[in-house]
Amino acid sequence: MKRVKLIVAYDGTNYHGWQVQDNGITIEEVLNRTISELVQEDIKVIGASRTDAGVHACGNVAVFDTESRIPGDKFSFALNQRLPEDIRIQESCEVDADFHPRYADTVKTYEYNILNRRFELPSKRLYASFCYYPMDIERMNQAAAYLVGEHDFKSFCSAGAQVQTTVRTIYAVNVTKEDDMVHIRITGNGFLYNMVRIIAGTLMQVGTGLMEPEQVKGILEARDRSKAGPTAVAKGLTLVEIRYE
Amino acid sequence: MKRVKLIVAYDGTNYHGWQVQDNGITIEEVLNRTISELVQEDIKVIGASRTDAGVHACGNVAVFDTESRIPGDKFSFALNQRLPEDIRIQESCEVDADFHPRYADTVKTYEYNILNRRFELPSKRLYASFCYYPMDIERMNQAAAYLVGEHDFKSFCSAGAQVQTTVRTIYAVNVTKEDDMVHIRITGNGFLYNMVRIIAGTLMQVGTGLMEPEQVKGILEARDRSKAGPTAVAKGLTLVEIRYE
Repeated sequence: MKRVKLIVAYDGTNYHGWQVQDNGITIEEVLNRTISELVQEDIKVIGASRTDAGVHACGNVAVFDTESRIPGDKFSFALNQRLPEDIRIQESCEVDADFHPRYADTVKTYEYNILNRRFELPSKRLYASFCYYPMDIERMNQAAAYLVGEHDFKSFCSAGAQVQTTVRTIYAVNVTKEDDMVHIRITGNGFLYNMVRIIAGTLMQVGTGLMEPEQVKGILEARDRSKAGPTAVAKGLTLVEIRYE
Repeated sequence: MKRVKLIVAYDGTNYHGWQVQDNGITIEEVLNRTISELVQEDIKVIGASRTDAGVHACGNVAVFDTESRIPGDKFSFALNQRLPEDIRIQESCEVDADFHPRYADTVKTYEYNILNRRFELPSKRLYASFCYYPMDIERMNQAAAYLVGEHDFKSFCSAGAQVQTTVRTIYAVNVTKEDDMVHIRITGNGFLYNMVRIIAGTLMQVGTGLMEPEQVKGILEARDRSKAGPTAVAKGLTLVEIRYE
């Protein structure tokens, strides 16, 4: 028996998110089925991040246990030949039997993209939010600076999440613009439900002038979801990387 | 009666190219239908570039004549409300009645994208070709330099094209790499059938070491399609811009 770790990239457009559910196809379900067929065992992967419907990933992480004699680093090739083209294993390797992708110390990086121009660009429509109003990147970075550090992010968490604490540490938030695309890149030790999308929605309000950068400080202190901006649409979000310390 | 010019962006993934045909839906057909419904006339657009199935555009050009009282610059807004989300008008304006998008002097810019890494990235799969072997950008630029200027591009033209001359002028070809994405950007006064894709396929062979940069000179002189590299896949190609002089 060995434990295999996968780095999984996917286009979330056609999936009902990561986690297996009744009302639609999910990434987890496709991985379970594909790995099970390959190794002829009943495989259930454990995912690191249960991304929402429409969210994309370059580097989500999943592990599974198998009796297979396929070497750990060869699973990437074997699975990519069987997976649909919107899911691709980027790397595979054997890990310790006690490695759990959700209970280890991690540094996660997300990117939220906003196309900021006069009209939508069709080739970007599935991978970015769209904003007609000009966005001030400098203001967005000023606002983002208030989020860096250890804070109670209750204001940036959707209702219904069951967590022991809403305190998280954000290591960095950087807003940049290339041509018409605004990138919000966030690195932290963990994120609450919808936290990155609520941060993106709030920074968009700051960028378009609906909110002042300084207000973010008060939003954090309020510990009240209704004070923050709206939850930005899922399709603009990509889980870039999960690093295990 | 007035003539209206449209700058048209589209994701070519779900279309059988620009030009109306029997066996599938096309960009031209959707534009004809949408504009006809808006102005309540039987509209037939004239397109500048009849892109192939799967090819994308940020800046194709189309014109049509109408009795409509909608101001030329308002068609972009009116049409974008009715078009499917994979077609978006970027700009509209009234032009002279004798302006024809194919018979005017133009400078066209295309970009061909190649994802160059170990495994395919799902979110890029519809907008770039994929190449596993490492590509040498310097060699590709050396090869590209032979293409610049006025040449007979018969070796870079697919059979079946009916043209008076295969002489064209390329103003610039630049190969750059950002992260894992190789961009081939080509500007010229006109392009033969499949010309950009055959140039891309040839430069890919140079980049991976299958061909020497100097061979491109001989390929041009041979005036023989079989001497050039393969036609690169359509999905990697985007028509970026058409400038009218």
